[in-house]
Amino acid sequence: MGAYIGVDLGGTHIGAAVVDSATGELSALRSIYTRSREGPEAVVARMVTLIEEVIAESGQAKTAISGIGIGVPGRLDMQAGVVHYLPNLHGHWQGVPLLEEIVAALEMPTTLINDVRAMTLAEWTFGAGQGVDTIACLAVGTGVGGGFVIDGKLHLGLGGVAGEIGHQVVEPDGPACGCGGRGCLETLASGPAITAMGLEAVTRGLVTRIGELAGYDLNSVSPGLIAEAARGGDAVARAIYDKAGFYLGIAVANVLTALAPRRIVIGGGVAQAGDLLLEPIRRTVRERVFIVPAEQVEIVPARLGVNAGLIGAALWAGHSRGR
Amino acid sequence: MGAYIGVDLGGTHIGAAVVDSATGELSALRSIYTRSREGPEAVVARMVTLIEEVIAESGQAKTAISGIGIGVPGRLDMQAGVVHYLPNLHGHWQGVPLLEEIVAALEMPTTLINDVRAMTLAEWTFGAGQGVDTIACLAVGTGVGGGFVIDGKLHLGLGGVAGEIGHQVVEPDGPACGCGGRGCLETLASGPAITAMGLEAVTRGLVTRIGELAGYDLNSVSPGLIAEAARGGDAVARAIYDKAGFYLGIAVANVLTALAPRRIVIGGGVAQAGDLLLEPIRRTVRERVFIVPAEQVEIVPARLGVNAGLIGAALWAGHSRGR
Repeated sequence: MGAYIGVDLGGTHIGAAVVDSATGELSALRSIYTRSREGPEAVVARMVTLIEEVIAESGQAKTAISGIGIGVPGRLDMQAGVVHYLPNLHGHWQGVPLLEEIVAALEMPTTLINDVRAMTLAEWTFGAGQGVDTIACLAVGTGVGGGFVIDGKLHLGLGGVAGEIGHQVVEPDGPACGCGGRGCLETLASGPAITAMGLEAVTRGLVTRIGELAGYDLNSVSPGLIAEAARGGDAVARAIYDKAGFYLGIAVANVLTALAPRRIVIGGGVAQAGDLLLEPIRRTVRERVFIVPAEQVEIVPARLGVNAGLIGAALWAGHSRGR
Repeated sequence: MGAYIGVDLGGTHIGAAVVDSATGELSALRSIYTRSREGPEAVVARMVTLIEEVIAESGQAKTAISGIGIGVPGRLDMQAGVVHYLPNLHGHWQGVPLLEEIVAALEMPTTLINDVRAMTLAEWTFGAGQGVDTIACLAVGTGVGGGFVIDGKLHLGLGGVAGEIGHQVVEPDGPACGCGGRGCLETLASGPAITAMGLEAVTRGLVTRIGELAGYDLNSVSPGLIAEAARGGDAVARAIYDKAGFYLGIAVANVLTALAPRRIVIGGGVAQAGDLLLEPIRRTVRERVFIVPAEQVEIVPARLGVNAGLIGAALWAGHSRGR
């Protein structure tokens, strides 16, 4: 237990704060633009400055802070501290030795973790996953990420890459996925998948208010706008969320049948659609899960919001120091 | 550690032996016909007699045996010791208080466990899963069962029903499943699914030797016979195993991407087809898994054979006594 810096490296913003690992309380929370077009070196330099500013703002001595945890939106080698693939950052950061660079600049114990695994740990410790020993967590956004806490422990698996629910194959002959596969959940139920369904509906001239709400500018079509249309009674928009929710439901059904967790936590930007997305997930689980007592499983929205990633990264810094 | 009775309640046979939980060695191994048509009461009575005979044959005093573990082929409430659904036994044993009846008759500490979870524990402890901390196990037979050891612990999940890989949805619009769902792995890759594909090929008059090998008796078509045809160069028979292996591969791919285990162990009667089944599984994993370092994952045949279930049930009796 103690004070850790949590950092959340995102596609558009980098957030950082001092996190009290006993309470989850944040102080000196700051956020800057990532500007990933400037390249990894520039971004890392700005991340170092951000962390220094957070420490200064916290009023604590650097030595009073036990370590730094950085959540990264993609694949990494946790042992080596090297980032392998960040799909939403310019250049994808192939092979960036992020850990080494942060340690060299700040001389503080540092750990890296996938951002959704970090979110999972945070939601389990302080959020919607509290009080049960096994949860699955999904983050539905630009991609679909995931994580598991199993018997009270964040499950990392071989190379620390466990939890990638977004790359569960839910439709063997489905669309090509950026990962190289086909029919991954992410191709059918992520923010971009929902937007693409909205664009298709408008382009094909279906009876929907999506185009009108977007001011007839296709660039303005987004999951949030489609959700707005659906809430206003637009059947086409509702069908889009039903379809995304169906595929999320199939993936959740498979997680339930495999691991039989007590609770499934669903977060990420797209999940702000609330019941519009959660209801078709719950319906699909009711219709498709028979082996597991699905009526005992809670499918609930995440609770910690956008700071879950940095809280979890800070918690992970505490956990991995303890080992 | 000590001597436990392991029992494997199967659809056609009940096996039992004394198992040395430190070495996995069996003594006084016996097997009788289940004759499930006689009803649960008669079967339980014969199971009690079998256990008494095994104890007598072992030459050990009853008090030298620490407990009994019974592997059951279906769903059960482990806590209550009640069997809920055994699809391959006559009458399905809905609500049979098996634990209570065994304890009443034998007055020995007794535990129940699903047979494939038992096999998973046995293969991890003494078989193909030795030496790694996380494995997934599949048993491909009349049904498709599964189990996980995660971080050195058998994962049971809510109500002890985790591990049902056979009810992963691998084709959302696929065939109806006995569980009530649709497109479950079991409908596309179990022994009966393979047999059904063979029957369809013969009935539709495809160019295949399956009918000839079966002596033109459809009752003789079986996964083993189709495997024999495939090994003899029969393209239709090979395509049947390719299809079953493809769907097993999709399920294995999803397990890999979710849990990133170090090793996947594949057993059960149908897996006796060896590479005929394992190769399409490995190929599908190579073609569909990109997030997890799939080249580091071993997909291997089970090693303990038909006694894995009773060995695992005995081990589980030891584990649960320890708690």
